[in-house]
Amino acid sequence: MLSSEMSRCVDICLSCYRTCLQTAMDHCLEMGGEHVEPKHFRLMMTCAEICRTSAHVMLIGTPHHKHTCAECAEICSECANDCERIGGMAECVTQCRACANACREMVAQ
Amino acid sequence: MLSSEMSRCVDICLSCYRTCLQTAMDHCLEMGGEHVEPKHFRLMMTCAEICRTSAHVMLIGTPHHKHTCAECAEICSECANDCERIGGMAECVTQCRACANACREMVAQ
Amino acid sequence: MLSSEMSRCVDICLSCYRTCLQTAMDHCLEMGGEHVEPKHFRLMMTCAEICRTSAHVMLIGTPHHKHTCAECAEICSECANDCERIGGMAECVTQCRACANACREMVAQ
Amino acid sequence: MLSSEMSRCVDICLSCYRTCLQTAMDHCLEMGGEHVEPKHFRLMMTCAEICRTSAHVMLIGTPHHKHTCAECAEICSECANDCERIGGMAECVTQCRACANACREMVAQ
Repeated sequence: MLSSEMSRCVDICLSCYRTCLQTAMDHCLEMGGEHVEPKHFRLMMTCAEICRTSAHVMLIGTPHHKHTCAECAEICSECANDCERIGGMAECVTQCRACANACREMVAQ
Repeated sequence: MLSSEMSRCVDICLSCYRTCLQTAMDHCLEMGGEHVEPKHFRLMMTCAEICRTSAHVMLIGTPHHKHTCAECAEICSECANDCERIGGMAECVTQCRACANACREMVAQ
Repeated sequence: MLSSEMSRCVDICLSCYRTCLQTAMDHCLEMGGEHVEPKHFRLMMTCAEICRTSAHVMLIGTPHHKHTCAECAEICSECANDCERIGGMAECVTQCRACANACREMVAQ
Repeated sequence: MLSSEMSRCVDICLSCYRTCLQTAMDHCLEMGGEHVEPKHFRLMMTCAEICRTSAHVMLIGTPHHKHTCAECAEICSECANDCERIGGMAECVTQCRACANACREMVAQ
């Protein structure tokens, strides 16, 4: 069974995956301009993918989750900063920061 | 923006994905016997994948979600029945039934 | 073991997944304009996802691949038409048509 | 556009993903015994997932592929060793070794 900390981290990763993908596919595509600037948009898509993978590896239950969580924390942190720079994506910033923190805690355990 | 019904369906699909994958990787592999019988185990893995995909397509926001939800409902329903037949996987049965219902509602809308 | 027809269909689905994702992330984001029009871009992302899933379900080896292949054929066909309408994405059109055909053959078997 | 080295690495990652998933779902489940020993089976599933993700991140085209490729190389290498220890999975050993090498080259560039 997953520990309650890991179970919470899976929740947060899936929630961040969901927010990043939906924000990119709805908000960013509708707004256009710097929201579809390649560098920003690719970062959002990479963030969605690594959150999805990070949750998946925790659910499989191998010790490699420490590495995927570390990478997830890194990418979420960059994504939060880039969403903050562009603005208008407060929910995505919040989710990415929360996910970065939760993943860092998994690495530290 | 996702409607509140679709948003709830995404929640349920991700929750069912999570339960199926974790049950297969933890409970089924640890129990062995009929829990790792190829037909059952493949069904659990297919169910995890279609739930993940069904959520993904709703988050992207194209009308194809009606088809992926229909297929998700079908597979979840089969998976619930097979988990019930084998026994000891009540949480998986509950999640799969709830997901089948939520997906069927998306198809009907 | 996968039949040689199914093995070929997995190849084609993964190749189409790859082309759709890369074309969206490279060509479409760099070109901008109608290439990042929400409806077109979401269709490319949905096509990438269903091709990935269609291959995954064939590799798992359950009979549900007939349904995921049918949906994959449908979405690939729409994606080919939309890429043709916008123009400049000949490789994506070719791959999507080939994938639609290969998936339809899996359904017919 | 992807460099020819990166394009080749995507090919190899998708090929390794495919071999690991199919070997687990067909060979391992049919053979049973140590092939479905939790530690081995979870490693095969983690390897399939990280190969899929590693290809995905290269296709998106962000510099994070260096990190996902590094992790992919590590997991593929472990998976190759574990498949060799159990035996009867020569194709999986070959694919995992090739993928580990190709990913290490991406990291070194």
